[in-house]
Amino acid sequence: MLKVLSHVRAKPESAATLRELFRASLPATRAEPGCIRYVMLEHRRDPALLAFVEEWADDAAFKQHFTTPHMIALAAQLDTLVAEPPQMHKYEEIDPV
Amino acid sequence: MLKVLSHVRAKPESAATLRELFRASLPATRAEPGCIRYVMLEHRRDPALLAFVEEWADDAAFKQHFTTPHMIALAAQLDTLVAEPPQMHKYEEIDPV
Repeated sequence: MLKVLSHVRAKPESAATLRELFRASLPATRAEPGCIRYVMLEHRRDPALLAFVEEWADDAAFKQHFTTPHMIALAAQLDTLVAEPPQMHKYEEIDPV
Repeated sequence: MLKVLSHVRAKPESAATLRELFRASLPATRAEPGCIRYVMLEHRRDPALLAFVEEWADDAAFKQHFTTPHMIALAAQLDTLVAEPPQMHKYEEIDPV
């Protein structure tokens, strides 16, 4: 299993729009065959900062994610809304429960 | 429920020691009454970087965590092992499953 932690920072004026864009994509992402868990978080004191805690069956499933219609559509709008490129980092879990 | 994402970066020479220190504390942390979920992650390409995905019943439970014997003991050793102060950020989940 692949764990990914991602951070996406919106331009201040685009925080609400970016949040809704990602929120709307949650059902489709969670329905992807290789998606085990997909958690969307908003920073408590910095609403322009979104974080995603993602669990994927494997690297191929994560790669596949970005070829889906909903992510292609989302990516097409991202550039105008983000303050910096999204940060995505792959992790391995230590001592899972 | 409170979600916390934490990052801890070890000095290069202390990565293994820091990892074992946190690994050893996992059972006690997970046994804390207010701890709902506590996931320890190691960055795939940067083993000096640990991340923690934490779910706590509330802010009080998270605060309580740092008063436990195992975290006091861990904190006492941390300064010599980390390359920078640990980063802990509080989040709210959007559209939980």
